Amino acid sequence: MNLQCRLMHRPVGMPKASDFAFTEEPIPTPQEGEMLLKTRYISLDPAMRGWMNDVKSYLPPVKLGDVMRAGTISEVVASNNSNFAVGEFVFGSAGVQDYLVSNGKDLMKVSPQLAPLPMFLGTLGITGLTAYFGLLHVGLPKAGETLVVSGAAGAVGMIVGQIGKLKGCHVVGIAGEKEKCEYVVNELGFDACINYKVENVGKALRQHCPNGIDIYFDNVGGEILDTVLTQINKFARIPLCGAISQYNATESYAPKNYLSLLVNSAKLEGFIVLNYMNQALPAIQEMAGWLMEGKLKSREQIVQGGVKEFLPTLMMLFEGKNTGKLVLEA
Amino acid sequence: MNLQCRLMHRPVGMPKASDFAFTEEPIPTPQEGEMLLKTRYISLDPAMRGWMNDVKSYLPPVKLGDVMRAGTISEVVASNNSNFAVGEFVFGSAGVQDYLVSNGKDLMKVSPQLAPLPMFLGTLGITGLTAYFGLLHVGLPKAGETLVVSGAAGAVGMIVGQIGKLKGCHVVGIAGEKEKCEYVVNELGFDACINYKVENVGKALRQHCPNGIDIYFDNVGGEILDTVLTQINKFARIPLCGAISQYNATESYAPKNYLSLLVNSAKLEGFIVLNYMNQALPAIQEMAGWLMEGKLKSREQIVQGGVKEFLPTLMMLFEGKNTGKLVLEA
Repeated sequence: MNLQCRLMHRPVGMPKASDFAFTEEPIPTPQEGEMLLKTRYISLDPAMRGWMNDVKSYLPPVKLGDVMRAGTISEVVASNNSNFAVGEFVFGSAGVQDYLVSNGKDLMKVSPQLAPLPMFLGTLGITGLTAYFGLLHVGLPKAGETLVVSGAAGAVGMIVGQIGKLKGCHVVGIAGEKEKCEYVVNELGFDACINYKVENVGKALRQHCPNGIDIYFDNVGGEILDTVLTQINKFARIPLCGAISQYNATESYAPKNYLSLLVNSAKLEGFIVLNYMNQALPAIQEMAGWLMEGKLKSREQIVQGGVKEFLPTLMMLFEGKNTGKLVLEA
Repeated sequence: MNLQCRLMHRPVGMPKASDFAFTEEPIPTPQEGEMLLKTRYISLDPAMRGWMNDVKSYLPPVKLGDVMRAGTISEVVASNNSNFAVGEFVFGSAGVQDYLVSNGKDLMKVSPQLAPLPMFLGTLGITGLTAYFGLLHVGLPKAGETLVVSGAAGAVGMIVGQIGKLKGCHVVGIAGEKEKCEYVVNELGFDACINYKVENVGKALRQHCPNGIDIYFDNVGGEILDTVLTQINKFARIPLCGAISQYNATESYAPKNYLSLLVNSAKLEGFIVLNYMNQALPAIQEMAGWLMEGKLKSREQIVQGGVKEFLPTLMMLFEGKNTGKLVLEA
């Protein structure tokens, strides 16, 4: 049977079990030109929370009653499509379910010989591309500049900080646990990391960024963004990647210091990785090269239990329980 | 005697008479290489309010006890400097006072034969350059796009909208009086103008911007910025020029819809005209050309009464009483 997790209600605040329903359907049968995909790994992303809301966004909302949208690595287990052979693996958006019939559109083959499969949801996938394009195309780092990245031990943040170091920046992370801070400094080479749960972020930033902040890669929004705004340099860039602190908030925190952008000729710029997909291949190749040379480290946190563990696994993101890319094994 | 208006206290909220003092000093005597300037026109700018605050900004705050900073057109009335002859006029920053001795540094000659002198504080001066660079270098207008400009009948806004029309944009202004709206539509050629004091801005924007908003040139900040954020298009640009609604606010209004920047891959970008001074001359020449061809209209509102009228004239800006560039005749 095909176990599916469907969105039944639009969550208010934190998503809860009653917002979802599990259904079991017969495993579908591929027709001519189609194939059957068995989900192997499901990507957990903070952006999923946004897809649950009924608002205009860069992707349409998940419809009520539909299988929850998710990036996936799937295995081809039956094929009537000459472009895909049984046993091959593909990246796609099969959603939070065990099986999907596909005609091959919008799928990308990935090889377990090149890298562990979950890495194609992380550093060598959408997550890595988000870090790569957000930092390099929006953040525009220059050697010697100071880069601050929040969500530093998260899937995107850890790549951003490492690419920042590769580009010669002074890199300061912000994370929510001592162990996460130690990890990004000791293992990933960040220059410093602030534990926002126990430190005064403003004071710690002044200490670790004596030359001010040139780039703030924002994964969290909220009060930390507001604090950073008071310490940006002239011509600073703030790539706006996410706002995980806000996704479940019923009342949003607005950046009251936004006029710092004006007096510093600085910019706050949103970006969506989907805008860059036509440039994805060389970016992935460059990151794969860094991985092989040991200049970039990837980390995935794999949760067992399959489709039925979707919600508790998603909640780990909002509770700050993951380090690196969070993936659910299906 | 040299009548001077000095900043004595840092205003809280709206500036008031007791924040300033008038002093009379003997007219200074130019030494070798110097000249005596008699102030003829004083520029009134919303940014002056920011200069009164003791905060790090793009210019240092006016020191308590100092003559209030202001852009000026002055006449050379005595000269020991071979580069400047008596009877010539210069643009500079002589401040809110009748006389200044200068060595000629940071002055720019202006000619009453080319344009009325107050225009060199407006369309052919810093104000015009602010509109020009903010729209063309930050706003990046393309023909067919929709440009919304707040403070539409103000010195900067009226130029922004006209340049927007020259570049083929659909231009919608926002202003605070029926007469101002009529002026920018009937005299300056804006496509529409919303009176934010009587109309529902969100509803009016939906009506006048059926294709969404590509550029919002923000002179006012506050709630209008927040409303515009809900109607921006993908890749929208928001040049952040000013926030006149906020300059006297003791509690700032923060844009709670800023995450619209994220989902629309849009940017909110501050700029300061001083960044562009090395490109000022060709810009002024281009605008002078448009003026001569009748493609651009300039408007100055001249207040009589000299230095002692500084504060009541400044207040006209915050009370929305000016149309076009507000200038005090000294």
